Amino acid sequence: MPSSNLESAMQMLIKTFHKYSGKEGDKYTLSRGELKELLTEELGSYLGNSKDNEAVEKVMNDLDANNDGEVDFTEFIILMGALTVACNDFFLDSKPDDKGKDGAEKKD
Amino acid sequence: MPSSNLESAMQMLIKTFHKYSGKEGDKYTLSRGELKELLTEELGSYLGNSKDNEAVEKVMNDLDANNDGEVDFTEFIILMGALTVACNDFFLDSKPDDKGKDGAEKKD
Repeated sequence: MPSSNLESAMQMLIKTFHKYSGKEGDKYTLSRGELKELLTEELGSYLGNSKDNEAVEKVMNDLDANNDGEVDFTEFIILMGALTVACNDFFLDSKPDDKGKDGAEKKD
Repeated sequence: MPSSNLESAMQMLIKTFHKYSGKEGDKYTLSRGELKELLTEELGSYLGNSKDNEAVEKVMNDLDANNDGEVDFTEFIILMGALTVACNDFFLDSKPDDKGKDGAEKKD
């Protein structure tokens, strides 16, 4: 049976991670170089393209909690989740004021 | 420029959430009914299809931390992240024993 959109999204996340993580060193984590390649090639338009070396450094330092210079799949998914939530907020915020949050709490 | 796989994945997550969240009540959260529809229609093959009402109830209770019967976008992304990590683990675990996970990089 064909994949739904959500299933495709999950597959794309998994496939993209392994496309880069397999290039050098530990096949199941992203080194700093692999992360940089992934971010610039796959998210260039979000992160402001290659000039922005600082963004990559910052992301790496934020993600690499145990400071071993490697980002594992769970850390990668946390990054993608945070980016997706930020994107969603951006689109909602840029909408006109017809939000219609009837009754419920209003989160700012 | 065309979307990369990661960008498409983010867009699909956002689009799918709003496709269901907009159906009734608060347009920016999933009610129990909307979540059930999303899970069965978009993730049926993961969650064992419609017979599995219990799975939906469990997911709803786990996600709905503040107990208002609504799941917001951030909660939805946490669910999708957890599912994606579980999927990835499943595929890795089902691979033969050439993982090379143990020591750091193993390159010869």
